[in-house]
Parts: sequence; C-alpha cells; structure tokens
Amino acid sequence: VRLSEVGEFGLIARLAEALGVPTDPRLLQGIGDDAAVWRNPADRLMVATTDTLVEGVHFDLSTTDWRDLGWKALAENVSDIAAMGCAPRYALVSLALPSEARVEDADALYAGLRACAEAYECAIVGGDTVRCPQVVLNVTVLGESLPLRNDADVPLLLRSAARVGDALAVTGPLGGSGAGLRVLVEAPQVTELTRQLIEVHRRPLPRVRAGQALVAAGCRCGMDISDGLVADVGHIVERSRLSAEIHADLVPVHPAARAVFGDAALDLALTAGEDYELVCAGPPEVLAAASAELAAIGEPPITIIGSIIAVEGERPAVRVLAPDGAPRTIRTGGYAHFAAGDSP
Amino acid sequence: VRLSEVGEFGLIARLAEALGVPTDPRLLQGIGDDAAVWRNPADRLMVATTDTLVEGVHFDLSTTDWRDLGWKALAENVSDIAAMGCAPRYALVSLALPSEARVEDADALYAGLRACAEAYECAIVGGDTVRCPQVVLNVTVLGESLPLRNDADVPLLLRSAARVGDALAVTGPLGGSGAGLRVLVEAPQVTELTRQLIEVHRRPLPRVRAGQALVAAGCRCGMDISDGLVADVGHIVERSRLSAEIHADLVPVHPAARAVFGDAALDLALTAGEDYELVCAGPPEVLAAASAELAAIGEPPITIIGSIIAVEGERPAVRVLAPDGAPRTIRTGGYAHFAAGDSP
Repeated sequence: VRLSEVGEFGLIARLAEALGVPTDPRLLQGIGDDAAVWRNPADRLMVATTDTLVEGVHFDLSTTDWRDLGWKALAENVSDIAAMGCAPRYALVSLALPSEARVEDADALYAGLRACAEAYECAIVGGDTVRCPQVVLNVTVLGESLPLRNDADVPLLLRSAARVGDALAVTGPLGGSGAGLRVLVEAPQVTELTRQLIEVHRRPLPRVRAGQALVAAGCRCGMDISDGLVADVGHIVERSRLSAEIHADLVPVHPAARAVFGDAALDLALTAGEDYELVCAGPPEVLAAASAELAAIGEPPITIIGSIIAVEGERPAVRVLAPDGAPRTIRTGGYAHFAAGDSP
Repeated sequence: VRLSEVGEFGLIARLAEALGVPTDPRLLQGIGDDAAVWRNPADRLMVATTDTLVEGVHFDLSTTDWRDLGWKALAENVSDIAAMGCAPRYALVSLALPSEARVEDADALYAGLRACAEAYECAIVGGDTVRCPQVVLNVTVLGESLPLRNDADVPLLLRSAARVGDALAVTGPLGGSGAGLRVLVEAPQVTELTRQLIEVHRRPLPRVRAGQALVAAGCRCGMDISDGLVADVGHIVERSRLSAEIHADLVPVHPAARAVFGDAALDLALTAGEDYELVCAGPPEVLAAASAELAAIGEPPITIIGSIIAVEGERPAVRVLAPDGAPRTIRTGGYAHFAAGDSP
C-alpha cells in the first residue's frame, strides 16, 4: 500500500495504532490534539534533545531495515538523555516520506520506535508526518533528572564539569558499533561474532541506568560516546577548558571486535562512533561507588581509562598514550577536531 | 560563504550566536551540551508540539524569504501551544540544508526564528543541523498551562471538549492569510492592502493571550485555525462526537481580503488555512467573559459564528449556513474531510 493511497490522516491513525496507548498516569493527552500534555513533577529538572536523520547521509536503507532504523533513531536521543544522567519520559517523532513510500515500511519503522520506547519506558506522545522526496526522521526526547536533594542541587552530567585530577572513565566496551559497520561495508563471512557486531551497530543500548548511577554517586561530568571516544573527550575538555590523557591500553575493546579485527579494533574503540556508552570524569572514589552500584543491579562496571589534566600549551587537547607511554597518532586525524573554536 | 566551508560546528556556533543568550532564570542549560535543561514549575501542565516544513511542499523559497520562513516555522508551533490555551516556553530547532547552501541564508532563518521567539518569550534551547539535499526545518515547542487551581483542574483547550449547546466562536478575522497567498500567486498590483495581506500570510501572529483568556474564563474546547475554519471545526466535531453549524454571515472576514477579493473573501475565510486565529466552543456567557478580558488588554474581541449541535444522521458533520439559512457548498470540497475515520 502506497502512502498516497491512505493520506496523511490515514497514516497518522495507523501509526498511532502501531504505537499503542501509553500507560503513563502523568500523561493527560498523547497523539490526537494540537499538543501532548503531561503533569510536571516539581522535584526534578527537565531535559530535552533532538536529532534529525537523513536518508543517504545518516542511514542507508540498503544496509539498515526500517525496524532497526526506528530503534536506532529513538535510541540515539535516549542516549543524549542518558548522557545528562537523566531518564527519558516522552518522545515526539516527525517522519518525512515520499508519497510513493510503502505504508508497511512506515509500520515497521514505528514498530522499531515502539520497541525502543517500551524498553526505555519512554512514551511516544506526538509528532508530524509530511511528504518529502527524501526520507527524513526527526526525534525529540524529553527526560527528567533524579530528584533534587535541595534547591542548589543540579543532579546532571555536564560536559563543562570536569576538574583537574578527575579520573576519566567509560561505562562499557567500545568499538563494537564501528566494527559492526565495517562488517556491513566489507561483508566478511557471516559468523556468530559478526552477527553480534551488526546487532550492536543496529540496535544500540543507551546507558540510562549507568548515567543515573553516576549522578547518584556524585559524578557531575559526562556525555555519551556518539562521535568516537577521542572526539567526545575532546568535547568535554573544550567545554571544561582543560585537557585529558587517555591510556590506550586501559580502553576496554569490544571482545567481538577484537576477535574479528585484531589490533585494528583498538582504533575503532578510540575513534569510531555510535557505541552509546558514556564517558565521564570524576574523583576515583566517586566512580568506584557508581561502579559498585551498577554491579549490584547487574550492569557492566565502569573502567578508568585516563585522567583530566591542566591545559599544556595554548588550548585544550586530548592526548592518547600507547602502552609504552608515547603519544599515539589517531588514524582519523581526530586531533584536528579539538582546535579551540571548532567545537563550541 | 557556503555551509561546506564552515562545517557543522562552525554553523552551530554561528547560529547559537545569532540566537543570543536566553535570559530565562529557570533555564539551566541551553545550546552546548547533550540536552537542554530547565526547572519544572509544579503547578502547571506541560505541553509539547512539533512540525516539519519541507522545501517545495510547505514553503517555496521563490515566494518566501529565509527570515519570514524562520518566523513562520516557529509561529506555527507557538500557535499549536496557543491552541491548547497555553504559553510557549522552550523551542528546539532542527535544520537540514544542502552543503552548497549559503551560511547567510541560515543566519537570516535564525534571525526570523529569534524575532518570533522574542515576541512570544520562547527561548530556543537546542536543535540539530544536518546535511540534506532538500531544505527541511523541524521545530518542537514546549509550553505550559495556566496554574492549576486544584488536582482535578485541567486548564486546557481540547478538541474533544465540545458540548451540545456550546456557542462556536473565533478570536479574529479570517481569510487574510489565504488572500495573501493568492496575492503572491496571482501577483496583482501592489497596494497598501495587498502588502498587508502578504504580511499576514508570511508573519502570522499566534493568539497566545486569547487562548489563555479563554481558559481563564472557563472555556475548555478549542484549537487553532491552520487547515481552514470548516476543516478545523471538523476536527473538533470528530473528536467531540458532535456536529456544528456555522452561520457564514457571522464569520469575520479580514477587511483587506474583503477589499481586494470582494465576495470571494468569504470562501477564503471559511476554507483557506494558516490564519492561526483560534476557534473555540463554550457556553455563550463564558465566551463573553473571555472577550471582555481580551478587550481589557487591548486584544481583538471574540466573535460567535455558530453552535455545537447533536449528530444528525450517522456521523459528525459541519454545516455551513448561508444568510438565508440554506446550507452552503464549500468550493474546496471541504466536507469530504469530515467523514468519520478520516480525521482521527
């Protein structure tokens, strides 16, 4: 069935049906009026993020199916909420499709969105559907902080909150998503390992609980790894006006990436993006407390990979040290991204 | 300067600069981290809406300049917030542009967004900038209701809240935007009147205060007129499972539209969209109280144009009566839109 046959209202009705009725008792109005409506809790901060994905730029329908695209589009935004140490609550989804698009593809996209929304307890409460020659997907997610302990409490992970002497840590293994993409592009033999890497690339699992555990333990600096570890640590040092050292041999590399790509997996762990683990900075004892808390609820532990240091020279920088202590060159030329003024 | 020369981070820095620093004391973090952050007021409902505009589908850069596009894109969403009887607070803007786009055009777009944001006290706190062959603009606006008087209070204008015997009313003259579009397409002689109509079409003024006055007076049913009066009343009767009668001779027609297009202006007032006035339903004394309140703050009065009636026949319908009381046929075939199931 083509989109042009069901029309905009037909499509909206179908997608609202596909999403099901949200059960959040604080939600007064989801899809169906001029705006979604919910009750605010007084004791939490509210956070909001949005991302746009364009066919041919951010995804390729020849290597991604519609369902996975739906999952990933929502997961990326949920990860931005996790990156603040917050939990997602509500999402708005706008979908631009050619009129010759198949309604079944839109159904599959929304099934993927719904699966991710249910996994992260985030209700899809509104959106827009429009005609466009290109497939363009925009997702906005609204989330909430942990409860405030007092009026001055800001229970968030911010990029700007690193301090000299902080340990730098990540919440899980890196390089899996980059390895999965490389498997898809290079199409090596299909094995259990390559299947696992493709799954990591296509259906990332944002670390909402890890972000909340970090905040609860007292950590206040962190973000999600979407551009790649070195680039994202670059964002932290730019915003904190400090520098960072990463010990390459401490970086946890995804085991399947290591098994399939050998030593090249370390480069993927350092520079490939879309792992959606968190990178954070804080006093070592705070990170240890968060790690213990995560272990207690069955989540992977936190791994210290380096430290925050004062700026040497003119501008914030990220130095990656090889096992022998020598600075290591990053293949992608990641360093260039960190020049002051490039990443506001 | 081409977009490809400044890069994504260069563009974001430039746009953040163009938007200025928001002064809202409740806003803790605007552009620059993984998400925007603000404090919730406990005694209000929060509302959220989003719209996507596609070049060649929703706007045409040969008849709209970038600055007006920015104003209108935000105004449309502010109008959806006004349509709930709420006030806008925060906006997220995502902009998809070809890499050969001119940075100066993006600057002009953001100048228009900023002008509208300042006029409606709505801070632009985040967004995304991506590459796309087509220009696509997505705006999400978050707003707040009036304070709740008690736990059961829902101080909103909903489409579903019409009651039999309610008067149907609009907050201002209609047909101006449709007339402005017709002027642009037909390019008649430029006069003060046609200039005024083009301005109404390009820079609509959402009725935030009117929506709030309606809610404060006790009205609970309404929406904004974006698709056209008859079509939008159709949405109200569908959601309320009732019917409506509109007296065509009571509908306030924009004076400049009447002066330029004569009797054809009434058709524009009934069926052309994008006026962004509100249409509401409520007890006549409630609407009179809201009208008095609006007059007191220098806003246009509310005009009663018809009433809400029980469903006759099988499904909700909108009947438009000519001055002699005979049903009037709507040129655009607007009736067809109201079949049950077409507008969920």
